[in-house]
Amino acid sequence: MPPIKSKVLINVDLGEAYGNFKGGPDDELFPFIDQANIACGFHAGDPVVMARTVRACKEFNIAAGAHPGLPDIQGFGRRELVLSQEEHTANIVYQVGALKAFLEREGMSLSHVKPHGMLYGLCCRDLDVARAVMAGIPKDIPVIGLPGTCMETAAAEAGLTFWAEFFADVRYNNDGKLVIERKRLPWELEDVRKHVTQQVEESSVTSVDGQTVTFDLKDNLVTICCHSDSPDCVNIVKATREVVDAFNSKMGYI
Amino acid sequence: MPPIKSKVLINVDLGEAYGNFKGGPDDELFPFIDQANIACGFHAGDPVVMARTVRACKEFNIAAGAHPGLPDIQGFGRRELVLSQEEHTANIVYQVGALKAFLEREGMSLSHVKPHGMLYGLCCRDLDVARAVMAGIPKDIPVIGLPGTCMETAAAEAGLTFWAEFFADVRYNNDGKLVIERKRLPWELEDVRKHVTQQVEESSVTSVDGQTVTFDLKDNLVTICCHSDSPDCVNIVKATREVVDAFNSKMGYI
Amino acid sequence: MPPIKSKVLINVDLGEAYGNFKGGPDDELFPFIDQANIACGFHAGDPVVMARTVRACKEFNIAAGAHPGLPDIQGFGRRELVLSQEEHTANIVYQVGALKAFLEREGMSLSHVKPHGMLYGLCCRDLDVARAVMAGIPKDIPVIGLPGTCMETAAAEAGLTFWAEFFADVRYNNDGKLVIERKRLPWELEDVRKHVTQQVEESSVTSVDGQTVTFDLKDNLVTICCHSDSPDCVNIVKATREVVDAFNSKMGYI
Amino acid sequence: MPPIKSKVLINVDLGEAYGNFKGGPDDELFPFIDQANIACGFHAGDPVVMARTVRACKEFNIAAGAHPGLPDIQGFGRRELVLSQEEHTANIVYQVGALKAFLEREGMSLSHVKPHGMLYGLCCRDLDVARAVMAGIPKDIPVIGLPGTCMETAAAEAGLTFWAEFFADVRYNNDGKLVIERKRLPWELEDVRKHVTQQVEESSVTSVDGQTVTFDLKDNLVTICCHSDSPDCVNIVKATREVVDAFNSKMGYI
Repeated sequence: MPPIKSKVLINVDLGEAYGNFKGGPDDELFPFIDQANIACGFHAGDPVVMARTVRACKEFNIAAGAHPGLPDIQGFGRRELVLSQEEHTANIVYQVGALKAFLEREGMSLSHVKPHGMLYGLCCRDLDVARAVMAGIPKDIPVIGLPGTCMETAAAEAGLTFWAEFFADVRYNNDGKLVIERKRLPWELEDVRKHVTQQVEESSVTSVDGQTVTFDLKDNLVTICCHSDSPDCVNIVKATREVVDAFNSKMGYI
Repeated sequence: MPPIKSKVLINVDLGEAYGNFKGGPDDELFPFIDQANIACGFHAGDPVVMARTVRACKEFNIAAGAHPGLPDIQGFGRRELVLSQEEHTANIVYQVGALKAFLEREGMSLSHVKPHGMLYGLCCRDLDVARAVMAGIPKDIPVIGLPGTCMETAAAEAGLTFWAEFFADVRYNNDGKLVIERKRLPWELEDVRKHVTQQVEESSVTSVDGQTVTFDLKDNLVTICCHSDSPDCVNIVKATREVVDAFNSKMGYI
Repeated sequence: MPPIKSKVLINVDLGEAYGNFKGGPDDELFPFIDQANIACGFHAGDPVVMARTVRACKEFNIAAGAHPGLPDIQGFGRRELVLSQEEHTANIVYQVGALKAFLEREGMSLSHVKPHGMLYGLCCRDLDVARAVMAGIPKDIPVIGLPGTCMETAAAEAGLTFWAEFFADVRYNNDGKLVIERKRLPWELEDVRKHVTQQVEESSVTSVDGQTVTFDLKDNLVTICCHSDSPDCVNIVKATREVVDAFNSKMGYI
Repeated sequence: MPPIKSKVLINVDLGEAYGNFKGGPDDELFPFIDQANIACGFHAGDPVVMARTVRACKEFNIAAGAHPGLPDIQGFGRRELVLSQEEHTANIVYQVGALKAFLEREGMSLSHVKPHGMLYGLCCRDLDVARAVMAGIPKDIPVIGLPGTCMETAAAEAGLTFWAEFFADVRYNNDGKLVIERKRLPWELEDVRKHVTQQVEESSVTSVDGQTVTFDLKDNLVTICCHSDSPDCVNIVKATREVVDAFNSKMGYI
């Protein structure tokens, strides 16, 4: 149960508006995060939203990554849709390419790719899907995902750098998998601080059953995810920022 | 009424299928064309279709360009939709970027951009739309469009190379604008040959009223468009190929 | 400048959520309104949202009407899209029929139809569109619209009952047309009360230029619209409710 | 292995075009069929297509039923999408209601409901989905489905009349389930005739393994499905028509 071996970052899903429909409070979150996972139009995030989110990332010096999802605006990419491997790969190429074009216009480069919602879940548990998704990611782009899952396996097979991810605002099962809540439940800020502190200090979480679940993070880089659609998400991000900054500082990670 | 001053190419809109819905007879057209305008998902052409069309262009050594459209699958991008300039620009960035990603995977580069359908029509007649569209195209990528229109003006303003385009299977009005038919009418192959021959030999067309309409092509490159949804399109393309090849050969254009 | 001749009602657009994307604060508005204009899936309002909104209307004893829009979720039905008359009519039949099915399951009947957003605007100014829309509405169903426009003309031609509508939270031009704001501006509640009071007491509004614009309401029924996406909309609805209730009571309208 | 006990009909999926994208050769099929399953806009069939298909059914005196699908135009309703029961029910209410509105305008009544594609498959094998779908169908409307499956069970539970269906152009497994082909394979017309003759004469099919699979049809009405996207579908429908007409005539079914 060692502490994280390198500088810990914070990633948040952003740009999840769609036309007149609002997403999270992105403007309040930009100052506190390191990595943005930007919706690419299939589950949220139309081209105008993408352009604006990319410009904000530039302004706030945030690393901008793609957050491709299943093609399902109505279901926000959270409904399971069974696609062929050819479809999965092409969907990733398409969405990542679209985001990259917005980045290039701002002189920015693509930081990473992180699958969204149900696609993330499928990549964790279904190696075929994970491989099809990884096959659509450019070779020099890192992937953010859940350690110890098919996603890590497929990323390794594809030769992609893997960022292991913890969740500040999601509970865990005993097997290290996430407790999926249809609607995000509120968190006490004190619980967030404890949850994240354990993650960075001990590479582990306490499951919903009270068990300690330790992750083998290998030499992977580590990032903590906060959601922009959790209740009180701005304060959750701030609390996570405090814990992460204190940890990085204590460890001398710059 | 001089002949075209440089090698004339043939461009065709391809990849206009969508899921199970069929597009044109692309497989029969690949051997006869120089430039493909590939649908980018907004009016037709899902990611799998795009991937396959790009691979076919590679196999047949066809220059692959983006064919971005208005966001309207049901209307096939042929219904007028009033968008803000910000929306137009972002839609182009998005679609062109998506196509570019498929090309990069095949080691190909983006050849050109040609707006589709109603977006093409808007670019011809509305300078604001034309400027917004040109603003979304990478600076080093040529544009294909109708000479003497707002599209040529906006391309010049944006510093983009302009390919002037004639149409083998569309009739013209006295002002050099196209006669828009809701459904493409059949053409006699002999009429196609005469239409294209006049275009390449004299830089002019005979309008539906029998007038000769001459185009000032300046130093622009020239390409002839054939549609893949015209009746008997395969034979129209072959007839155009014969005329163009004979002209290029006679002129010594290689 | 006579007062309204019959009981004045209040109508609000509801059910404008879409999947995970939120609409207005419907739950807070139900207690204060008489007529709901329910989104039918083309600009907002998926089938689950429609089912729930219909049930809420039943619970609060609100007259449930259809609020059909242009087929454009991304633009929330507020972008102009040029459709054929056949398309307009079929779109209305489709959307109104879908809503009617949810009502029938609850033993309710369809109260009225009111076009949404840009479709409403087109019906006001374009008689062809207005006629095509009216042609899709069942003969026994009233229409809510702006008095003195093509919509009233087309409704009359089609033999449909017409509810003339005032707007509590929209400003007017000198010609009686609405001042369209891309984003709804805030209103002082006192201004809402004055605006609505003048509407019901004098059948007129004061335009943005300070002119009094009087409407010829004929024998049409009258309803006041409040929007659920205006800033502070709950209080605007409550203020309108007070003015309308006081007027109806004073006039002895039950 | 008794013959069918009542008049056998022929049903075909129609109206599967979408905007400019073509569906099957409906115009050639209308003269030969009894029941049309009309796409309702979720997997194919926009409002204009629906209006036209309904009018054609009236002209040809074809019983018009709803063919609701999963919300997935790109996948033509043939990709598995996991929805909640509330979503399934609401999707059926919406689609069936929309079609009913077109029928009412023509003075026609809704003949039946038959789920499309993957939704049909899910209703066969997943009782929860089947129940959710049946919950969305009006009580007086019959359902067409595969006998001996969850669909028949759920229809019975819901008190809905059930039409048992055979397939003229689909092969069967030993368990009476259909052999799903991603792309429809061609059939020899002689094989179609033998397949359908066995169905109507003996209530059985010969599986791909050569086994005789007999169906317990109870007192259900029986209909034979032909697909409009099979190769040579017009001749398959004609061949089926001949066999069915000869059988009905021989049995004295009018």
